[in-house]
Amino acid sequence: MKERAKYAADDQLQASDTHQSWKPGTMIYPLPAVLVSCGQSPDAYNLITISWVGTICSNPPMCYISVRPERHSYKLLKESGEFVINLTNEDMAFATDWCGVRSGKNYNKFKKMKLTPVKAEKVNAPMVQESPLCIECRVKEIIPLGSHDMFIAEVVNVLADKRYIDPATDKFDLAMAKLLAYSHGHYYKMGEAIGKFGWSVKK
Amino acid sequence: MKERAKYAADDQLQASDTHQSWKPGTMIYPLPAVLVSCGQSPDAYNLITISWVGTICSNPPMCYISVRPERHSYKLLKESGEFVINLTNEDMAFATDWCGVRSGKNYNKFKKMKLTPVKAEKVNAPMVQESPLCIECRVKEIIPLGSHDMFIAEVVNVLADKRYIDPATDKFDLAMAKLLAYSHGHYYKMGEAIGKFGWSVKK
Repeated sequence: MKERAKYAADDQLQASDTHQSWKPGTMIYPLPAVLVSCGQSPDAYNLITISWVGTICSNPPMCYISVRPERHSYKLLKESGEFVINLTNEDMAFATDWCGVRSGKNYNKFKKMKLTPVKAEKVNAPMVQESPLCIECRVKEIIPLGSHDMFIAEVVNVLADKRYIDPATDKFDLAMAKLLAYSHGHYYKMGEAIGKFGWSVKK
Repeated sequence: MKERAKYAADDQLQASDTHQSWKPGTMIYPLPAVLVSCGQSPDAYNLITISWVGTICSNPPMCYISVRPERHSYKLLKESGEFVINLTNEDMAFATDWCGVRSGKNYNKFKKMKLTPVKAEKVNAPMVQESPLCIECRVKEIIPLGSHDMFIAEVVNVLADKRYIDPATDKFDLAMAKLLAYSHGHYYKMGEAIGKFGWSVKK
C-alpha cells in the first residue's frame, strides 16, 4: 500500500479527503462464525450459524447472540433460555456455511452435516462434539432491536476439546484448532501470529 | 489432527469423553481488535482498543462496545454519547496493542502512535485517518453488566478508505485492507479465503 502525501495543514483535514461516505451498515470485521446449538431434547436439537455474537462482559463472563425472530432456532432459544456457542474451525467451514443458509424446519442439521450432538454439562442444549470449544450459555434478557433480537446470556460453563490441551502443561492451545473467521461475506483461515497482548510495551 | 475412534453407542456419548470442563470464561474468538475514537474536541480526543465489540442488529444497523468504567475513555463516551469504531490492519498492530494497555490520562495516544485524528462526518468524535473503515456510532443505551458497561449504539455513517475502492467498479475490497484479528490473547493476520457465504448450497 503506497504512502499518502502528507497534508500541510493538518487541522484542515476532512474525512472525505481519504474516505468515501456510505450509508449506515454492519461492517465490523473480522468476526467468528459460530454454530449455536439449541433445543431441549434430541428430536428438537438444532444448529444455527451466527456471526452477530460476542463477549459483552468479562466478570461475570457474559455474551450475546442476535437472531432474527423468523428463524427456526428463535423459538427454541426463547422457550429453553439455553444454548451452546460452538467455535468452528477450517474442517467445519462447509457445515458452518450450510447451517447458516438452511432451516431446521426442513433438515436435521446435525445428521446432514455429520456433526455429533452431545448433551452439554450445565444446560439442556447439545454441544457439537467436533467443535474445539463449546460455551454453555443461559439467557438473562432478550432485547428486540429491529431485524434481530439480542439474547444476552451468562456463560455457565466452557468445554475445551482435549485434543488441544497439552497433557504435560495442561495448557490449551486455541491456535492449534485453526479457527474460522468471517469477514464481509467470506470465510477465512486465520493467518500468521503478529504478537501477544501487551507486546508493544514489553522491554 | 487425527480422527477420533467412533463410539458404538452414540446416545451414550458424554461431553467429558472429548472435552474438558472449565470454569465460565470469555472464549468467543476470533474477534476484531478495533480502535474506538472518542472525545468532542481535539484536546480531548482519545483512543481505546476494544475486542468486546460486535454487530447486534442488521436493520437498523446497530452495534455495541463494552468498556470498563475505570477507563479514561468511559467518561468521554458517556458524556458525548458518540464514538467511531475504526477497523485496524496489520500496519496498525503495534498501535492497536499499545492503545489497549496505555491510558489517555497519561498520553496523547494519537500523537504517540502517529495516527491522524480527523473530525468524522456525522458525530463529533474523530475518525482515525489510517483506518481502512470507520463506523460512526451514536449511543442509544448503556447497560451495566459487572466489570464492563455495554454501550448499545446505532450506526449513523460508514467511512471507507478510498484506497480499497476499485474506481472502475466502485466496489470496496475489505480483504485488501489486511485486517487484524484477535484470538485468546494474540493478534493474527487474516489467512486464506475458504469460501463465500452461501457457497455450500451453490450448484
